[in-house]
Amino acid sequence: MLQGLSGGNEMKVCVVGSTGHVGYVFEGLGQMPEVDIIAAAPGSKGENIESLCSTISRYGYAINRYGDYIRMLDMEKPNIVVVACYFGDHAKVSVEALKRDMHVFSEKPLATTYEDLDKLKQAYKNSNALIGGMFGLRYTPCFLTAKKVVEEGAIGEIRLMNAQKSYKLGNRGENYKNHKSYGGTIPWVGIHAIDWLYWFSGKKFLSVSASHSSMYNRGHGELEVSALCHFVMQDEIFGSVSIDYLRPSQAPTHADDRIRIVGTRGIIEVMNDRVFLINDEPREQPEMNMVSGKSVFADFINYIKGQSSLISAEDAFIVTEACLKARESADRNSIVFFK
Amino acid sequence: MLQGLSGGNEMKVCVVGSTGHVGYVFEGLGQMPEVDIIAAAPGSKGENIESLCSTISRYGYAINRYGDYIRMLDMEKPNIVVVACYFGDHAKVSVEALKRDMHVFSEKPLATTYEDLDKLKQAYKNSNALIGGMFGLRYTPCFLTAKKVVEEGAIGEIRLMNAQKSYKLGNRGENYKNHKSYGGTIPWVGIHAIDWLYWFSGKKFLSVSASHSSMYNRGHGELEVSALCHFVMQDEIFGSVSIDYLRPSQAPTHADDRIRIVGTRGIIEVMNDRVFLINDEPREQPEMNMVSGKSVFADFINYIKGQSSLISAEDAFIVTEACLKARESADRNSIVFFK
Repeated sequence: MLQGLSGGNEMKVCVVGSTGHVGYVFEGLGQMPEVDIIAAAPGSKGENIESLCSTISRYGYAINRYGDYIRMLDMEKPNIVVVACYFGDHAKVSVEALKRDMHVFSEKPLATTYEDLDKLKQAYKNSNALIGGMFGLRYTPCFLTAKKVVEEGAIGEIRLMNAQKSYKLGNRGENYKNHKSYGGTIPWVGIHAIDWLYWFSGKKFLSVSASHSSMYNRGHGELEVSALCHFVMQDEIFGSVSIDYLRPSQAPTHADDRIRIVGTRGIIEVMNDRVFLINDEPREQPEMNMVSGKSVFADFINYIKGQSSLISAEDAFIVTEACLKARESADRNSIVFFK
Repeated sequence: MLQGLSGGNEMKVCVVGSTGHVGYVFEGLGQMPEVDIIAAAPGSKGENIESLCSTISRYGYAINRYGDYIRMLDMEKPNIVVVACYFGDHAKVSVEALKRDMHVFSEKPLATTYEDLDKLKQAYKNSNALIGGMFGLRYTPCFLTAKKVVEEGAIGEIRLMNAQKSYKLGNRGENYKNHKSYGGTIPWVGIHAIDWLYWFSGKKFLSVSASHSSMYNRGHGELEVSALCHFVMQDEIFGSVSIDYLRPSQAPTHADDRIRIVGTRGIIEVMNDRVFLINDEPREQPEMNMVSGKSVFADFINYIKGQSSLISAEDAFIVTEACLKARESADRNSIVFFK
């Protein structure tokens, strides 16, 4: 493999796992000639990285392939580790990278247990490296547009938010079928919507009531196919998150992501990848002109370089914790309060 | 006033109060020549019935007008009492009517406190008369269409429901500004959406977590302008209810009523008075053809005559109780369980 192509600023990348959205890395590559993907390894027992390695090759990188990611990190000494293995193993891999002062670009959730999240935060505190999460939906044209409109004050103060994630189920691998490797549908699917509540409002979570069910999951073991969360945030702001894997196979898209944000001066909605605003100012039509999307990986590279990022490590920890609290609420059928 | 116009089947109606949706009575009159409106009185201290009496006159009824509704009931001996005073007084008036074996067509909620609801249920049990609630939104073309499609099995088993009530605030009277006369936004506005969860699923409520806020209510005293409820029903069915009075004045309609119902075979939505279905069967377009709307008052008259009604007295009690539980949850910031 050709190292050092872009001189002293080169960013050597190792990929751990092929289960998450590694695609975010490839999407952003055109903007980042300094990035060099140098090696890959599975991050979870039983994970197959064949297809991942083929894809990396297709992008023109000749990589070393390892069976053991720890060995890969020690041998290759990358600047950045992309963590995209089974979700229950994210934190374990990230901790190993942070210990070695390697930056981590992790699939969400950053951890699937409180214990792992604590270990990860500790490793982050002791490390000279940064961690970023694959909160890729923030970077889409519709959500960037909605964020811009809200920041311009078009809806006034946010009071109420209704977020939705709806996916087609299809046939999911074994890693989705047990809690330990999967982590739960609230942390895996719901996290995006929970992130929106936090991102748009900029407020702290105070409490959550949640519910989830694995009934009618078409042979997917412990996988929950319906879930609902009720968050209370600072300033008496409330947010619902509806999550399901019941989107019919005939639906035109895989996902039906939505948010409706009710403010003191207006209401904005993201639906069907479009953005609609109604407020007290007359306008010819409620649909907003879209801003361009961005690359979440390019944003992470900028973050490493000391620029501000759309989502900080601290934010990613907060959103991950909110998911775990919501899952705990659903498991215990009681309100869970945030510290 | 001209009594006995339609002979032995005549239904003499007295109206108590002018605050609720008395309009439902007028809308249905064309279908019911046997109905005769004979008198009206305020049901709450300070309630003005001028405009109500004018409207009744415009429909061709010459009515007696009373200052005291109890005296009216005793003097006029109506078959039906329409209860539409300040919401906190609904139950008190209904109890007086039921005691006299007069049928009650009440604005919702049927009661605004547990104590009043218990008294009302007891009065109903001891009465030979029936009680019906003004759950008028069930009778609209869009909700009747959605109900029909769900009953035909198009979405399979219901798993998740997201209901929405969004109103313009405008300038509301004093009776909206204090809890005692108003009862709360969850019971007044949210009740329709809570009713939909119950009506569509046909399942019992098990628990509710709710929140409400009177912040940014533009001088409306204790009136809550945002609220969110999270219901858990039998069979791990979950339902969210989002409620607000923050619909911008420029919006094309007063209300933005919606429900999204996610089933094992499909998803149906009511939005903008239209109905959309996606399920596993290919179809040219997701919009459903509408069935006709019905009159809630005509349905109540049929109920009195021994026919089945779209909503029974027992259902109206259950939905009213669910609202009071949700309000209690919001007041106490804790989950409230149903017996």
